[in-house]
Amino acid sequence: MVNEGPGSGIPDIVIGRLPIYLRALNRMLQEDKEYTSSHDLGQRLGISSAQIRKDLSHFGEFGKQGTGYNVSYLYEQIRHILQVDRQWPMAVVGVGDLGRAIANYRGFVPRGFRVVSLFDADPAKVGDRIGDLTVLSFEVMTTEIKRQGVQVAMVAVPAEAAQQVADQLVEAGVRAILNYAPIMLAVPEDVHVQYIDPVIHLQRMTYYLKP
Amino acid sequence: MVNEGPGSGIPDIVIGRLPIYLRALNRMLQEDKEYTSSHDLGQRLGISSAQIRKDLSHFGEFGKQGTGYNVSYLYEQIRHILQVDRQWPMAVVGVGDLGRAIANYRGFVPRGFRVVSLFDADPAKVGDRIGDLTVLSFEVMTTEIKRQGVQVAMVAVPAEAAQQVADQLVEAGVRAILNYAPIMLAVPEDVHVQYIDPVIHLQRMTYYLKP
Repeated sequence: MVNEGPGSGIPDIVIGRLPIYLRALNRMLQEDKEYTSSHDLGQRLGISSAQIRKDLSHFGEFGKQGTGYNVSYLYEQIRHILQVDRQWPMAVVGVGDLGRAIANYRGFVPRGFRVVSLFDADPAKVGDRIGDLTVLSFEVMTTEIKRQGVQVAMVAVPAEAAQQVADQLVEAGVRAILNYAPIMLAVPEDVHVQYIDPVIHLQRMTYYLKP
Repeated sequence: MVNEGPGSGIPDIVIGRLPIYLRALNRMLQEDKEYTSSHDLGQRLGISSAQIRKDLSHFGEFGKQGTGYNVSYLYEQIRHILQVDRQWPMAVVGVGDLGRAIANYRGFVPRGFRVVSLFDADPAKVGDRIGDLTVLSFEVMTTEIKRQGVQVAMVAVPAEAAQQVADQLVEAGVRAILNYAPIMLAVPEDVHVQYIDPVIHLQRMTYYLKP
């Protein structure tokens, strides 16, 4: 099992489903479940078993006819494919309420990420302790990110500031940005951006509600 | 322009893009931009102009050959289609760090939502003031949600508690749940669920990073 890596021609939408499979497998491990099937996994996730088999077939042969998938084996393989069988150091930019919640969140470490530095533009926040970390200023952001080899960052600054922050992060070597600011970021082609904006999800649902 | 409503046969993936168009149009309004085009909008969003025209054509004729779309008109029409030209009362369940950040977030009101009640299972948190609201216990959740006619809720409790919370919310009349707990929820068919799990987004990007 080798990581096929970028440019391997595997559609990004397939890659996008792997973390969801991984989360379900992790839950099965917690339930001491030893074997699963594409049918079983599909039922939990609301995805067809054919889709799951097709997605996994991009990466190799993981199950056996009849017995299905060994949960722990498939879990480890997907962790390896997604490169989360290690810990990625991560920076958080913006320590308002949301940035603080992110900094304190204990769900990152078991899933491949560790917050190693916090930054804020507000001099009143610089020097604050959050957990084991001290909030640093934007002035030292580039140096600090380079020093720690950070490739992953979460942006939780106001919309107006987000593009400038992203530019600085990319300049420092960040290649994956999870953006909480409600604005699209312009980044070079080799930089990946994902977005979290709760209102986008809420507005998608209100369409279906009775007024 | 009438809201086509559910069962109108418009694919959910189209509905899912409307909030993204809305956010971009709102930004254009802030920039005092009067007209836009599917090309212009597409450039900002990394979506093809053909896709945007096709998406909008489900709901009517919004632009004019040559002049394009009037930003403020299209903005209002999409607000109307998504039913966010009103304010939906919203409950937040779980007031840990994340729940507090959500409760304090000022980005909901201008986009159609107002947090009207907060709940937590922890007796030590019940009675806490967050902004203008007092944290209530799970015991009064059903009554309170019914009283306020809440149809929209955000769930920010630990994974183990999320399904039970969802069941209680649905029972009380909630029809749209934004779930921050890292677990899939089982709900009746007429209840909509959207998920936010930052790790899912992060893991999707690490696949592409150099180790």
